[in-house]
Amino acid sequence: MLLPSKILENAVDEIATLPGVGKRSALRYALHLINSSDSDFAAFIGALARLKSDTHYCSRCHCISDNTLCPICSSPKRNQKIICVVENIQEVMAIENTGQYTGLYHVLGGVISPLDGIGINDLTISQLISRIPVEQTEEVILALPTTMEGDTTNIYINRQLKQFPNLKISTIARGIAIGDNLEYADEITLGRSIVNRIPFDKI
Amino acid sequence: MLLPSKILENAVDEIATLPGVGKRSALRYALHLINSSDSDFAAFIGALARLKSDTHYCSRCHCISDNTLCPICSSPKRNQKIICVVENIQEVMAIENTGQYTGLYHVLGGVISPLDGIGINDLTISQLISRIPVEQTEEVILALPTTMEGDTTNIYINRQLKQFPNLKISTIARGIAIGDNLEYADEITLGRSIVNRIPFDKI
Repeated sequence: MLLPSKILENAVDEIATLPGVGKRSALRYALHLINSSDSDFAAFIGALARLKSDTHYCSRCHCISDNTLCPICSSPKRNQKIICVVENIQEVMAIENTGQYTGLYHVLGGVISPLDGIGINDLTISQLISRIPVEQTEEVILALPTTMEGDTTNIYINRQLKQFPNLKISTIARGIAIGDNLEYADEITLGRSIVNRIPFDKI
Repeated sequence: MLLPSKILENAVDEIATLPGVGKRSALRYALHLINSSDSDFAAFIGALARLKSDTHYCSRCHCISDNTLCPICSSPKRNQKIICVVENIQEVMAIENTGQYTGLYHVLGGVISPLDGIGINDLTISQLISRIPVEQTEEVILALPTTMEGDTTNIYINRQLKQFPNLKISTIARGIAIGDNLEYADEITLGRSIVNRIPFDKI
């Protein structure tokens, strides 16, 4: 795409580094910003600039937070004895939106992926392990993606957690999504959902 | 969506003001920015901040430009006697990408749209009119959107341009898009494409 301005081109290139944004959308966003009012533009740039300088990570669960402890970790209403281990903050929000979970979280910041150069020390696994005795955790729920990398991470964490004999370790149920047609389900999921079948009254 | 940080929430709200960006995508972009390196983040914010402060509009065609005259207006290779009138800079780039046009442009900055509060004085129509005698323009091509607002603007500009008796006024061809099936074309387009049929050897 031939742009009439180097400054516009530079901005379009930067916006196109956002995940899933192509050059055409980036140009649309850039032109929208150019045409916005000065105050709107200042608010936009200001909010983005503060993202990096002013956000912190919760010292306990490593979720993004404005304070040392995030609202979930500091809430007296949450069950302090259960930790749900997730890959990223997006999953925290997805699970929160279900309204089905009242425990705490632990954000790993990724999953073990040698191809992407993400090793054990890049994740907050050791911080998770050290939380268990301090918080007298009773259950850890592994809610990592059901990919090869997610499973590798699951197995590694599971092995580390074995040092706590009284700790219950569980993982989120895998099976046919609600509303899905059996004939379109992949074989591995369908096979597992038969092997790991649940009592009918628990549905 | 319940976010654990006010700063993040604020940034997501701002990003979601971009055209076609929802809260979920905005969150994805915000988290991508938080996780990016300090230098990448600074480059991103810097490029966006310069968008408003450092870009200018070409004094002749009102396209975005780094200098007083845009690269198209200042190019000696372009035909200085033809002006193509477009709504926005996106259309300049779309027409440039076809490689079929070698004249100049005039960016109106919108089309007449009373419902959106856009009147004649919000557009660069008077600047277009004053270009004609100065540049001794021979032809004006109206390449506005084929909507009601675009047609209204077409008619208004056409009437204004009538004061130059030797000026040729044309509009881009409307008809069946190349690759389209006749049976799916709307009736108005199909009807017009029969009325305005062209000699076979001009295809």
